[in-house]
Order: sequence, then C-alpha cells, then structure tokens
Amino acid sequence: MTNVIITGTGAYIPSITKKNVQFTDTNFLNVDGTPIKDTNEVIIEKFKAITGIEERRYAKNELNTSDLGFLAAQKAIEDAKINPEEIDYIIFAHNFGNVKPNSSQSDLLPSLATRVKHLLKIENPNCVAYDILFGCPGWIQGVIQAQSFIQSKIAKKALVIGAETLSRVIDEHDRDSMIYSDGAGACIIEGSENNNSGILSHASQTFTKDEAYYLFFDRSYNKDTNSDINYMKMHGRKIYEFALNNVPNAMKAALDKSGIEINQLKKVFIHQANEKMDEAIIKRFYRLYNKPVPEGIMPMSIHKLGNSSVATVPTLLNLVLKGEIENQHIEKGDVIMLASVGSGMNINAIVYKY
Amino acid sequence: MTNVIITGTGAYIPSITKKNVQFTDTNFLNVDGTPIKDTNEVIIEKFKAITGIEERRYAKNELNTSDLGFLAAQKAIEDAKINPEEIDYIIFAHNFGNVKPNSSQSDLLPSLATRVKHLLKIENPNCVAYDILFGCPGWIQGVIQAQSFIQSKIAKKALVIGAETLSRVIDEHDRDSMIYSDGAGACIIEGSENNNSGILSHASQTFTKDEAYYLFFDRSYNKDTNSDINYMKMHGRKIYEFALNNVPNAMKAALDKSGIEINQLKKVFIHQANEKMDEAIIKRFYRLYNKPVPEGIMPMSIHKLGNSSVATVPTLLNLVLKGEIENQHIEKGDVIMLASVGSGMNINAIVYKY
Repeated sequence: MTNVIITGTGAYIPSITKKNVQFTDTNFLNVDGTPIKDTNEVIIEKFKAITGIEERRYAKNELNTSDLGFLAAQKAIEDAKINPEEIDYIIFAHNFGNVKPNSSQSDLLPSLATRVKHLLKIENPNCVAYDILFGCPGWIQGVIQAQSFIQSKIAKKALVIGAETLSRVIDEHDRDSMIYSDGAGACIIEGSENNNSGILSHASQTFTKDEAYYLFFDRSYNKDTNSDINYMKMHGRKIYEFALNNVPNAMKAALDKSGIEINQLKKVFIHQANEKMDEAIIKRFYRLYNKPVPEGIMPMSIHKLGNSSVATVPTLLNLVLKGEIENQHIEKGDVIMLASVGSGMNINAIVYKY
Repeated sequence: MTNVIITGTGAYIPSITKKNVQFTDTNFLNVDGTPIKDTNEVIIEKFKAITGIEERRYAKNELNTSDLGFLAAQKAIEDAKINPEEIDYIIFAHNFGNVKPNSSQSDLLPSLATRVKHLLKIENPNCVAYDILFGCPGWIQGVIQAQSFIQSKIAKKALVIGAETLSRVIDEHDRDSMIYSDGAGACIIEGSENNNSGILSHASQTFTKDEAYYLFFDRSYNKDTNSDINYMKMHGRKIYEFALNNVPNAMKAALDKSGIEINQLKKVFIHQANEKMDEAIIKRFYRLYNKPVPEGIMPMSIHKLGNSSVATVPTLLNLVLKGEIENQHIEKGDVIMLASVGSGMNINAIVYKY
C-alpha cells in the first residue's frame, strides 16, 4: 500500500486581535432575549475559566475565507517545496463560504477551492478543486479524502485547506460568540512508495439521530433585530456531553486500528474547541487505556487564537512543526494523532507517523 | 480491482410547473439595468429556440434543498433494496445550501448531508455524511469520490445525492433566470467483487485561470433593488465557448481510458444545461472520432424540467432506467457515459457498463 505523507504545512493567523476585555461593553442576552444577570466582567471571567480563551483573531475586512485559505495554501506549498502545477486535488473545508463583513449572505459561487486555485495561478486543468462541508472536522476529513484518492490512484499530490471567518456569522448578543475566531491552515499530502511514515489509520463518524442540530443557524437573542438573519448557534452543554461520550472512543478506534501502543503516542492535536472540554476528552481517552495523561501530550493554541473551526488543527500542527509553541516538538519517527469534533455532529481522528 | 456499481437510483421532481408563458409580464433588463428592446414574447421565443426549455419545476415553499435530496435518496434506497443502516457514506452535492423562499441567506449549518441522514433515521454513526460543492458536475464528482472510497476500502456502500433550489437564487430581471429550476437525484453505489459491470473510467477537471468567475454571484440587473443581495449570474457566451472547446475532449479522455470503442457507447447522459449547447458538445465529441452522432444517443429532459444543476444527470438517468422517457432504454451490458460541466469551471465524465 502506498504511504500517504504530509510534506508541508502552512497557516494564516489573521492580524486583528480581539481581547476578552473588549467584550466589556457588549450587550449579552439570554436565549429568550432577557438581560443576563451577571456583569460582563463576571461573564468574561467564567468564559475564560471554561474555554481558556484570552483573545482571538479576526480577519481584516478586505479578506474573505477564500483569501485566508489561499494565504495558508501558499505557505504549505512553499514548505513542501513542490511545484503547484503538480497538485492533483485542492480540497477546501469550510462551513459558511465567503461572508463579507456586515453581510449575511454566503458567497459560494464559485467554490472557495476554485478561488484558491485561481489565486495560486495554477493552470493545470487536471488539478481538481472542490469544497467540503463537514463541520469543524472538515480539514481532517479532507486529509482522509486525499488519502483515499492517493490510495485508489486517482491522485498523487493534494492540497487540503481549512479556513473560516466565524467572526462574520456570530450573534454579538450571544456569550458563545466569544469562542469563535477566524483562521486558516493547510497542508500538502503526497503518496510515497519508499517511506515507512505517513497516515497509519483513521476513524470518522457522523451522529444525527439526536445530535444533527446541536449546532444550528438561528436568529439573534436580541429579538429587536431583523428576524430573517440567522447566526451560528449551539447547545453548548449537549455538545460538551456528546464530545465526552464519543470522541475518546473514536480516538481509541483509530489508535487500535493503527497497531500503535498508547505509550508510543507522542502528541495529540485536538480541535481547539474549549480548553476544559479538550482536557476532559484527553483524560477520558487515556482512561480507556488505564493510563494517566502524559505531560505536554496536547499542545494548545486556544488561549491566543480561539476556536477557528476547521482551521484549528492544521494551524496548531503547523505551529508545533515550525517550533512556535514552547516545549512542543515533533521528531522523525514520532507518532501523533489529529482529532476533531463539531457540527454534524461529526468526529474524526487520524494516527500519523512522522 | 473491486467493481463499483450503481445499484439504485431515485429522483424527486418538484410539483410546481412554471411555463415559459408565465414570464410574459416579467421586467427583463440588460446587464446595465436598461430595458431590453425586444418584447417578452420575442425574448421567450429566442430563449426556447436556444435552450429547448418549455417549462421548469420549482419546489413548494415548505421544501428546502435538503428535503428534495431526502425525497430522492429515499427512492434510491428503495430501488437498491438495501438497509439504510448499511450505508457507509452520504455525499450531498449542492451549491447554495438551503435557501428559504424570500430569504437571501444560505443555511449550511448543519450540512445538508447531516439533515438527510437525520431524516432517513439512520442511526449507524459510522455512516459519514458530508457535502461537496463542485458546481453542476457535483453529483458526478460525488460518484467519483464514492468510487475512490470503495476502491481504497474505506466504504462498501454510498448514497450520492445532488439537489438544488435554483429558483431561490435567481434574479427575476435576468433573462438567464428562465433556464434554472429545482430538483434532486440520487443513487446508491456499491462495491462488488463478482461483476464485470460498473464504473470503467472517469475524467475530472477544473479550469480557473480565465474561467473561475464565468458563473458568479452578483447584484440584480435592477439597480433599484437592495445592492447587498446577490444572485446567480453567468457569462453565457463564454460558458458556451468554453464547454464546446473542453467538454468533448474530457469525454474522449474518459472513453479512451475505459478501453471502450466509440461504436459500443449506447447512451450519453449529459448535464441538461442548454439544448443547443448539449447538441453542439455531442457533435464535437463524435467528430473527434470522425463519426456522426447516432440517433437517440442523448436522452434529454430539459424541455420539461429545465436546468436543475447537480440534479439533472441523476434525474435523467433515473427517468431512463425507469422507462419514463419514450424510446430510451438501457439494457444489461450497455455502456453509457455521464458527463457534466458547470461552475468552477468544472468538467467531468464517467464511463459506466450496465
């Protein structure tokens, strides 16, 4: 079987920093539109204690999701040292298309992958560009798809992008909006016959019976606003419980399929959703093997970057590979895991050997 | 190599018929907002002469794109006589998400594939549901992806859906809007070890250098309307020329890869974009082999159903398989081609043996 390896990574971290303190004057409301009793200082303090988020990044007005994706893709291509004309597939994971500032309409025509290919000036018509919508796990799912295309011999090299401008689909009256941020990450995936590294296994799931609408689109908590405009909303507690009950099992399924022992696992790159949730997931994952969580196993970027959906995992991986997170490194031969959970409700995990 | 076969098809044809004559009082405008000199009778007559469209279908207000997709999927599952719990992948091709009537905002959260899985009441979490955006060729691309998943052993059965409600993203002042319609088609794809039928080959391309924005999102030709709301727009002449120059070559690439002689090809199911364009494409395709176009090779549904984007090819295939188009049949052993072109600009083709 052909090995499928990541030969380059890149990320674009938007330039506007929004600190928690900048939400001090926001008019946060309850679901029913009534004012929240706590002061904003208390709301923000509680928020930070749970999510770990101190600040988040927003894209400049002139940049759209496809632009962020392009900027990350450029870096991944440079890092992989490949000729962009050799790319067989461009897979762009997002969830809302391009949403301009102060507009509610998603622009999906043409696809964001097409826009990136255009910006990269790739002329080869056999480079196939498409978008995938799979919630926050979309970028990992794109990697799984690229792997499949390589193994079934319809591609040799793929560019997989995850980008999002969540700052443009959030309800400013909803406390949960403080979680979300903008960002983009990308990687180059290649098939290799002479390599014992690469993707060892994956797991992928979609839960829809009770869970389909845990993340959903709905009107603002401020009932005085235009009721035709919807925003990203979530049932936070349900998601938290769902994630704890299901993500560790999916991670275990992927690890067991890989043949790798839990002790050999060097890093887990988990979707930066919420620090307390991520910590609870990793704890339960190790508990499935009756092991304590090893020190430093789970690099985190949420404190400074927030939750940028599809962009968190590739951004975090890129930060560690480039030595930009203190005390976090990957060495040749290290086995790592990528894992995500989000709207769908979708879960996935990849076990990868460097 | 595992053969990949279509074991069931289904379609949902929306119930509202809009005839050409119903556009008689529409205020058609030029790109610059000036009135068109011809009367509507002349505009409609010219339109029909080129596109072949006499009437088109629109979905009822209470049905969204995901509902149309669900209705088609139900029929495909029934036709394939499979247990829905055995489906490993649900791939939903669309281009605008759910757009409610009289709303401009796309609802993409959760994905449409998730909504279909929920409506189908599938409980198996290992049935992975995602959306793909690939212009009109999205459904064929979903079939190509399902084939790859089956051949790389990550799936055995897949449900591939194409659905769209274009009636909700069109500018009523634009003549081109008469082309578009609503619809949904679906199929079940399965791997089989004991079968000499199935997908023989495929071709897939994305042209973005000059072509990325041949189909695009822009404001109404009526400059008095809200300039923040965008509609589906196209450079019709450029698309026509692009299609004629590139689709026949892609079809030939797929056919030549399959090892099938042009004389053995029994039917070509081509995206119902525009009758004159489709006829010109098939003529050029046969000219590449120095052959005349065989009588009845290209079943058409555009006269009554219009152009429903991703839905046209699976709907047309289903109509012929169910004997609902006069003098059009597929027999066991017949080799057919599925081909499409659209926004991206994307082109694809599949050669398939029944």
